[in-house]
Amino acid sequence: MTDTAALARRFVETLEARDWDAWSALLSPDVVYEMPQSRERIRGRENYREFNETYPGDWHLQPKVVIGDGVRAVVWFDWRLSAEGSGADEAGDAQVFLEFDDNGLITRVTDFWPEPYDPPERAPGLIERW
Amino acid sequence: MTDTAALARRFVETLEARDWDAWSALLSPDVVYEMPQSRERIRGRENYREFNETYPGDWHLQPKVVIGDGVRAVVWFDWRLSAEGSGADEAGDAQVFLEFDDNGLITRVTDFWPEPYDPPERAPGLIERW
Repeated sequence: MTDTAALARRFVETLEARDWDAWSALLSPDVVYEMPQSRERIRGRENYREFNETYPGDWHLQPKVVIGDGVRAVVWFDWRLSAEGSGADEAGDAQVFLEFDDNGLITRVTDFWPEPYDPPERAPGLIERW
Repeated sequence: MTDTAALARRFVETLEARDWDAWSALLSPDVVYEMPQSRERIRGRENYREFNETYPGDWHLQPKVVIGDGVRAVVWFDWRLSAEGSGADEAGDAQVFLEFDDNGLITRVTDFWPEPYDPPERAPGLIERW
């Protein structure tokens, strides 16, 4: 059975390393990348590589939780965007879901980029903030 | 090994059914529930149950992707909030990460509620919208 958790971790680590050849080698030629929040889709390994390789900013990714079941995997990761000069980094949590073919190549990538929000008014006494 | 994927699916299905006893039975008494986007935390099964049992609105949850590895699990689910009268439903994707103890009880629940956003300007030719 494919160790999809290990491949998912490698997916993020090779992105972080900008090791584009190693990263591309994880992907099926026909991989489909989707961002449901913005309803954006990229088809094909070459297009997806170009998108990432030219993505602006000094971004950094670090896995926090990796779960794989032999067919799919998810990585919950920290992202950080270093602001040049200003010192005001942006950071947050994001998730990437991966699907694999029988050869262990990634056929589908789905990103979620949840943003902070102010909580609605809640019943008192149940919730703490951090 | 605990079938964390099956328990994660049951977690969502018992929520959807408002079967609070069956849902509570999946939880450790000391479960911690967190929503990182709003930095909210609830400690304990009774408080978490009260929060969910009194959550307003006609909400519905349907699992799309479930991944479990025996220790953790994630559910990527559709949520839908039926608007009474107006017919204008809200809907979207969300994710819940679960951690389990050795007895298969859920010790930690982390929700992410990603919201739609308009994409930034992108290099032409790579991206399609849906």
